[in-house]
Amino acid sequence: MPSVNVAIIGAGVVGSAFINQLKNLKFPIAFNVVYLARSSKEALYSTDYKPVDLANYKTGSAQPVLTLDDLTKFLTGASKPTILIDNTSNATIADYYPKFIKAGISIATPNKKAFSSDLATWNEIFDSSAAPGGGLVYHEATVGAGLPIIGPLRDLVATGDKVQKIEGILSGSLSYIFNSLSTSEPSSTKFSDVVNVAKDLGYLEPDPRDDLNGMDFARKVTILARIAGFEVESPTSFAVDSLVPKELESLATGAEFLQKLPDFDADFQKRKDDALAENKVLRYVGQVDFTANKVSVGIAKYDFDHPFASLKGSDNVVSIKTDRYPNPLIIQGAGAGAEVTAHGVLADALKIAQRIAQ
Amino acid sequence: MPSVNVAIIGAGVVGSAFINQLKNLKFPIAFNVVYLARSSKEALYSTDYKPVDLANYKTGSAQPVLTLDDLTKFLTGASKPTILIDNTSNATIADYYPKFIKAGISIATPNKKAFSSDLATWNEIFDSSAAPGGGLVYHEATVGAGLPIIGPLRDLVATGDKVQKIEGILSGSLSYIFNSLSTSEPSSTKFSDVVNVAKDLGYLEPDPRDDLNGMDFARKVTILARIAGFEVESPTSFAVDSLVPKELESLATGAEFLQKLPDFDADFQKRKDDALAENKVLRYVGQVDFTANKVSVGIAKYDFDHPFASLKGSDNVVSIKTDRYPNPLIIQGAGAGAEVTAHGVLADALKIAQRIAQ
Repeated sequence: MPSVNVAIIGAGVVGSAFINQLKNLKFPIAFNVVYLARSSKEALYSTDYKPVDLANYKTGSAQPVLTLDDLTKFLTGASKPTILIDNTSNATIADYYPKFIKAGISIATPNKKAFSSDLATWNEIFDSSAAPGGGLVYHEATVGAGLPIIGPLRDLVATGDKVQKIEGILSGSLSYIFNSLSTSEPSSTKFSDVVNVAKDLGYLEPDPRDDLNGMDFARKVTILARIAGFEVESPTSFAVDSLVPKELESLATGAEFLQKLPDFDADFQKRKDDALAENKVLRYVGQVDFTANKVSVGIAKYDFDHPFASLKGSDNVVSIKTDRYPNPLIIQGAGAGAEVTAHGVLADALKIAQRIAQ
Repeated sequence: MPSVNVAIIGAGVVGSAFINQLKNLKFPIAFNVVYLARSSKEALYSTDYKPVDLANYKTGSAQPVLTLDDLTKFLTGASKPTILIDNTSNATIADYYPKFIKAGISIATPNKKAFSSDLATWNEIFDSSAAPGGGLVYHEATVGAGLPIIGPLRDLVATGDKVQKIEGILSGSLSYIFNSLSTSEPSSTKFSDVVNVAKDLGYLEPDPRDDLNGMDFARKVTILARIAGFEVESPTSFAVDSLVPKELESLATGAEFLQKLPDFDADFQKRKDDALAENKVLRYVGQVDFTANKVSVGIAKYDFDHPFASLKGSDNVVSIKTDRYPNPLIIQGAGAGAEVTAHGVLADALKIAQRIAQ
C-alpha cells in the first residue's frame, strides 16, 4: 500500500477529533504519524520514524517538542513525503508555513492565521507551493469548518469562471445571534439577551467582543476574497462594521461589557424594526463585491425568502454569484465544531495523500 | 511543465462548452488533447500524438472515429497517462468504462449511464479503479452538473461520517415545475400550464414524459445512494412516483400527452391545496433514508421555511444529514446547463491531472 508520513501539531478539541478520525480511517493509502505534538511542550516521535501509537498518544512517553527548524530537518530526513497537520491557531507556526512548503512539506490546516495576514505572506505561500519541489497547501477548514467552500470556489476560478459577488454568514456565533434576533415576525427580543444566550451556549469567546468586533469574520472574508482574485491587503484594509458599541470598546473585561450592553438594545431594536418595515431581516454578513470593487463585513438586510433569512441555529452559509451561476451557488451548514473542522482537515489530508503518496 | 494526454468524446452542447473552457485554461499542468471525437463518426487525432488544434476542431481534417478497442490501444500506446473525457450520454461508451479503467485510462464524465445501471457495473468500475494500475474515475457532473455534491459526499464517507438521510431536488425541469406550481400563497396555477411553460423554456425532453416519469431523476438518486453506502441494485429497484398519469403512459406522442394532461389538473390542485392547508408546499424529491432503510423518488411536502420551499427557478438542491451534520449540509444552485456541466467535468479533469500528470 502506498503511504505518506504525517506530522500533527495540536491535540486540543479539534486536534483530538482529528486524531480520532484518523485512527478509524479506512483508506487505500497508509498514514504514518511520525510526529505528534500533543501540547506546546510535549511531542511523540522516534528518530527512526516509527509510527506514533495513536491509541495511547495522551499517555505515551513524550519528549520535548522540536523547534520548527528541527522539525523540518526531521521530516525532510525521512524517505517518504510528509503532510503537516497544523491543528492549532498559533501564529508562530503559521508564520513558518513558507519554510515548510519550500522544504517540500505539504500542509493541511484549519489555522486561518497564515492565509489572512498580509497579502505578501499569502503570495509567498502559494508561490512556494507552485514552485518545483514545493509542498501542497489545502486549507478548506479555514472558512466554514468542513463545509465545501474553498475547494469549489477554487474549482470555479481554475476552470475560468468569473466571480461577481460572494456573500456569506461565516461566524457561528453571529449567525446564531442574528437568526435569533431578527425574524420575519415582529419581536422585542433584545440584542443583549441573545448575546448572553449565545455565551451560555458556548458560541462566544471568553470576551464576547472578540467575536462581536467582526475581526475573526473578516479573516475568513479575506481568504475567500483572495481566492476569488480580489487582492485584499489584510483583514484590516476594508470596512468591518463592529457590533461592539464605541463606548464599550475600552472596558477592561468581557463581564463589564455584558453588563453595559443592554444600554444599546434600543439601537438594535430600531434597526430591526426598520428592516421589518421593508419586509426584511438583519444578518451580519461578509461581502466580496467585484462589481462595486468592494469588500466589507457588517449588517445587511435580506428579503424573507432569501436563503440567508431562513438560516437556522448557528449555521454558516455562503452564496457565490459568478458568470456561470448568476443565480448563486449556495453552500450551507454547520461552520464550527470539532468534528466538522477535523473532517475538513482530514479530507484535505486525503487529497494531498492522493497526490504525493509513494 | 508536467502534462497529461486527454481524449475527448463528444462535441455537442456540453462538449463544445468543455472544449472552450479547456482552450482558455490557465493551469500548471499542460493538457495535450490527442484525440477528439467531434461526432459519432468523425475524430481528430494523429498517430504521433500531436495535440489536436482546438481552435479549429470543428472544421479541421478528421478521420473516422476509432473503435473503443482501437482507442484504448492508441491511448495506452502513448508515453503519457491519459484522461478520457466522455461528454456524451452514450450507453455503449459507458459500458466500456471498466475496460478503459483496467487499461489505466482515467475518466471524467457527466455521463450517468455507467454509474446508474446495475450495481455489478458500479462495483466493477470502482474495484478496477482501486486495483494497481487502474485509471481514476471522477463523475461530479453526473449529479447536479457542476454543483459540489459528489466530491463533498465522498469526503464525508471517506473520513468516517455516517449518512443518515439525503434529500434532493435533482431535476431542473421538475424543480421549475414544482417551484412554480406550489408556493406559500394559494394559487390556481395549473399543472398542465406549468408543464407547457417548462417545455417552452427548453427545460423538458421532446417528450415531456421522459422527465415526468422520474427515471432520469432516479438515476441520480441511485448514484448518491451508492456513494453513501446504500447498495441500490438499479434505478428501477426502488419506488419512483411517476408524474405521468397511468392513463397517459401509452399515448403515442408527447403532443398527445400534453393535450390530455389538463384532465389531471384537478388532482394536482387538490394535492397542493391539501399541502397548503398544512402550511406546506409540494416538491418532487429523491430521498435516501438510512433510518427507514428506504430509497424513493416522488412528491413530498415541506414547511414554508424549509430550504426546499424557497427554491427558485430550475435550481437543484441537496440536503445531506449525517452524524456530523444533524442540521444538514445543503448545496444549492443551477443543476443543468452546458457551462456548469462542462465546468464540473473540467474541475474533475484538473483533479485527475494533479494526481497522474508526469
